Amino acid sequence: MLDETAKGVFTIAATPFLPDGALDFESLDRLVDTYAEKGADGLTILGMMGEAGKLSADESLAVIKRVIGRSPVPIVVGVSAPGLAAMSALAGEAMQAGAKGVMVAPPMGLRTDAQITGYFHNVAEALGDIPFVLQDFPLATGVQISPSVILQIVADCPTCVMLKHEDWPGLEKISTLRKASDAGARRISILCGNGGMYLLEELLRGADGAMTGFGYPEMMRQVIDACHAGELDHARDIFDAYMPMIRYEAQPGMGLAIRKHTLAQRGMIAHPTLRKPGAGLSAAAIAEVDALAARQKRRLNDLGL
Amino acid sequence: MLDETAKGVFTIAATPFLPDGALDFESLDRLVDTYAEKGADGLTILGMMGEAGKLSADESLAVIKRVIGRSPVPIVVGVSAPGLAAMSALAGEAMQAGAKGVMVAPPMGLRTDAQITGYFHNVAEALGDIPFVLQDFPLATGVQISPSVILQIVADCPTCVMLKHEDWPGLEKISTLRKASDAGARRISILCGNGGMYLLEELLRGADGAMTGFGYPEMMRQVIDACHAGELDHARDIFDAYMPMIRYEAQPGMGLAIRKHTLAQRGMIAHPTLRKPGAGLSAAAIAEVDALAARQKRRLNDLGL
Amino acid sequence: MLDETAKGVFTIAATPFLPDGALDFESLDRLVDTYAEKGADGLTILGMMGEAGKLSADESLAVIKRVIGRSPVPIVVGVSAPGLAAMSALAGEAMQAGAKGVMVAPPMGLRTDAQITGYFHNVAEALGDIPFVLQDFPLATGVQISPSVILQIVADCPTCVMLKHEDWPGLEKISTLRKASDAGARRISILCGNGGMYLLEELLRGADGAMTGFGYPEMMRQVIDACHAGELDHARDIFDAYMPMIRYEAQPGMGLAIRKHTLAQRGMIAHPTLRKPGAGLSAAAIAEVDALAARQKRRLNDLGL
Amino acid sequence: MLDETAKGVFTIAATPFLPDGALDFESLDRLVDTYAEKGADGLTILGMMGEAGKLSADESLAVIKRVIGRSPVPIVVGVSAPGLAAMSALAGEAMQAGAKGVMVAPPMGLRTDAQITGYFHNVAEALGDIPFVLQDFPLATGVQISPSVILQIVADCPTCVMLKHEDWPGLEKISTLRKASDAGARRISILCGNGGMYLLEELLRGADGAMTGFGYPEMMRQVIDACHAGELDHARDIFDAYMPMIRYEAQPGMGLAIRKHTLAQRGMIAHPTLRKPGAGLSAAAIAEVDALAARQKRRLNDLGL
Repeated sequence: MLDETAKGVFTIAATPFLPDGALDFESLDRLVDTYAEKGADGLTILGMMGEAGKLSADESLAVIKRVIGRSPVPIVVGVSAPGLAAMSALAGEAMQAGAKGVMVAPPMGLRTDAQITGYFHNVAEALGDIPFVLQDFPLATGVQISPSVILQIVADCPTCVMLKHEDWPGLEKISTLRKASDAGARRISILCGNGGMYLLEELLRGADGAMTGFGYPEMMRQVIDACHAGELDHARDIFDAYMPMIRYEAQPGMGLAIRKHTLAQRGMIAHPTLRKPGAGLSAAAIAEVDALAARQKRRLNDLGL
Repeated sequence: MLDETAKGVFTIAATPFLPDGALDFESLDRLVDTYAEKGADGLTILGMMGEAGKLSADESLAVIKRVIGRSPVPIVVGVSAPGLAAMSALAGEAMQAGAKGVMVAPPMGLRTDAQITGYFHNVAEALGDIPFVLQDFPLATGVQISPSVILQIVADCPTCVMLKHEDWPGLEKISTLRKASDAGARRISILCGNGGMYLLEELLRGADGAMTGFGYPEMMRQVIDACHAGELDHARDIFDAYMPMIRYEAQPGMGLAIRKHTLAQRGMIAHPTLRKPGAGLSAAAIAEVDALAARQKRRLNDLGL
Repeated sequence: MLDETAKGVFTIAATPFLPDGALDFESLDRLVDTYAEKGADGLTILGMMGEAGKLSADESLAVIKRVIGRSPVPIVVGVSAPGLAAMSALAGEAMQAGAKGVMVAPPMGLRTDAQITGYFHNVAEALGDIPFVLQDFPLATGVQISPSVILQIVADCPTCVMLKHEDWPGLEKISTLRKASDAGARRISILCGNGGMYLLEELLRGADGAMTGFGYPEMMRQVIDACHAGELDHARDIFDAYMPMIRYEAQPGMGLAIRKHTLAQRGMIAHPTLRKPGAGLSAAAIAEVDALAARQKRRLNDLGL
Repeated sequence: MLDETAKGVFTIAATPFLPDGALDFESLDRLVDTYAEKGADGLTILGMMGEAGKLSADESLAVIKRVIGRSPVPIVVGVSAPGLAAMSALAGEAMQAGAKGVMVAPPMGLRTDAQITGYFHNVAEALGDIPFVLQDFPLATGVQISPSVILQIVADCPTCVMLKHEDWPGLEKISTLRKASDAGARRISILCGNGGMYLLEELLRGADGAMTGFGYPEMMRQVIDACHAGELDHARDIFDAYMPMIRYEAQPGMGLAIRKHTLAQRGMIAHPTLRKPGAGLSAAAIAEVDALAARQKRRLNDLGL
């Protein structure tokens, strides 16, 4: 079971499709294998970047079973849904299939502190003893969660074992949460998203790792390992080498298309297809990504990577 | 099949629950019967007021089948969903079960005209030849749809046969749409929501009827019939008699609890239960509703109703 | 000075313009006189309904001075502004001119409880010893304020002496705040807005009066007086007679045009002009208002009013 | 006068304060001088990053006059305001003082295409013959503007001479606008914001330069000059060297504090003070900026800069 000690790299998995929009299970297998080879300690599936909302209930379950059957590392399943009944049903199926935990983002429209804590109280009750990740991603959800609200949820809900941190700006939030756990609050795992954009600073502030799906997932492994080895300058060299691409992939609404293009270029999936509604990249954008990839390769070579 | 000629009263049906939160199918039967007796020309189920988001997929289908098996009038099914795959799957099941059409509200987050028309193009494509109702409810969805956007969707999507109009303010929008269809644009049905708050003015502006779930659904029948009979003063007398209650029920986030309280008081359902998350009424609110109901009864008596 | 004991009717004053958009000071005088004659205990100027945002700084000051020089009742001045410096400057000028207090709505964009309390701490500091009204109007500002946040601001800021309550739904909020002050929290004045739509229930929940600008401001006086006299049925009769018009005026974005039409029809101002950007009423809307006014007059006649 | 041919670097100027919050005119002089020395072709003052909302009207005018009196390059003044009267008054004063144009961002709350074009029609009318920059910054304003809306405004308003482009993602928008002007639409200047995060790609897509206030404004000059000289690889080397800092400064709500820290560290202003409400940097954040600055310096040295 997922618990507060989780750390390292939980890669957010893309969901591969064939050119006609059907699920591409062969690519899914290859993707799972490659994520693990490139250093994932776990995988998160059916998150926002997994195009979860575009799958039918049957397809979601098929993806869950396929990934869990294949993966050598633990699986977390995104179960955000407009209603608790659907969330609870999907979470139950995922856990029965072998998932280690689930991830929940608050629905758009929550505003006050009381609304947010109330929502997660209901989530925790609906999920029973299933451990869950609280996804804090205001840019996508519009829900702004204060550190004090997170601490309240952590205090009230023992099954909340991890924060997927992608508030922006969010560095002070990590420091605040760590100061609170140092002072006696229950310490939960903090893995960071935002495409890795602030990964190095996040680690220095006390994060336990990354949970994101950057098209070169080995970046997270390399940066975290260098940090843990105390080689901070080396970590910065690596991080900076990937930075122009991280930044380019960070364009909201385009990030997934860029990421799938990269995964396809690298042979990790067969097709860069996004399911509708969801557009591919323009020729200009493809040229931009490819130029960045070529430079990145040279810089990583210079670093012996 | 639902088409552009639909008119009259399409009552938005509540979904009744037992005190423990389970679906109350006996009450559902009684509710369907009573809605028809009180003058419904059709029913709309699994809309926002039907707590659709709180049902699992299996429960949704069970409700659809039960209502369609019972109802003497045509059924429209709300199928709004975060993704097109889930929407399309539910719509297919509903139509197979005998529904006459489906209703779709745009997801929160759509902003520009192009985003909104693009979304409904995708919806129409995903639904194939299933006729659909465009639900225009900015207070709930946050999506503001210009008249020109509605006209564009109507022009582009022949399966868009009805507007559920609950923009606020929205009277000029009805006039604009009717002016456009008088000038040659395809004329679709316009049924109005907003709890009936502006029903009389909406009819005078060219709406074809009401699609809402006010706790006294006979109000819509009575007002529409009086208007059609040319008895405008009588229509206003009826409308005004219900107005204090319409206004009270219009409180966002509380309307459903008020409505279910009324339905339970009137014996149309067994319990006023809302499924979680969703609170019941305070003692003070119940006293307020009951006081309004008592006065309303006297005024309707005076009108011979 | 405005303080926690304020009660009764604080009418929100419109700002009259000539047909060419210039300030109409003669109408302003007449409006101030009439508001007082119709029972206002105070006036609030330069609020959202006073088209404050459309006045230059010089014009705002001219309006403030004219109204204060004319009015027999105390004046509250709306000073909401994007920045504290502008707010503080305007508040200082208003108080120097003889205003009794100011009103502040939070800027769009505030979300978490901490952001909102932090903002009002800054407001209180910037205003020094000037008493202020906290305007709680989520439909217009997008800022949702929990009862606990209001209580925190009241506890922290002794100069916060009044709540302009126009949350929707908001009845439980009044009950919660009154329960808190009954239990020992500082009791501030609560005057209610929302065009008077829930005035009767608000009074029964513990509100101290109304602060709104309904086109027939005598309604607030009559309803409050009847309530205070213990004639609740009479109060309801009056309230119900105005209800169809209250509801019609409640259309967001159109309310001011309707109100100015009414004020002009009643001879309280010379022209219904709105300053740009801001449209007048269509012919259809004018016909609707006039029909409602005629019926309202008859019903009030029947009540001996 | 500012016109469609404007290009290069328009630096967004910070507004320096003394530790007690008063305007620091000496630092303002030095800042203006340094911006020009570091290659600015123009300056934009009183934008969002200039803490415009925190200045009183008198202070705004004082800053305008001081900067215009000092600067060897043309000045654009941000005049966004809740109302057209205040905007028009400030714009008139700015132009009289010698500004070459003004900049206007749409107010929060605009949604439909028609609302946005309508707003800018009103702006253009209110500004008369004053040339203006349309600021397109959805992350800050919440207003999403389609390319077709921009083209409509450009077609309708001859005084709209420049787009301050900071939509995100926004690269396709630049391509679309340039394709339209290539096909015959009036071509206006496009200068890009977003802290320079996508400057290189923006230039390649057809932007005319940068309008942003990154703490090392020479970056914009160097990247643009290298691009124009056809030395694309060199441009990328420079851009990449600054990238970790650009990214760090891009944190919304913190960017200005980071920028002012940098400006103070570099001696361009005396104090990093932000006016209230607005917090300074934590010790951890300062350490992060300083570490980035040290690495950046080394990398620029390696590039001979």
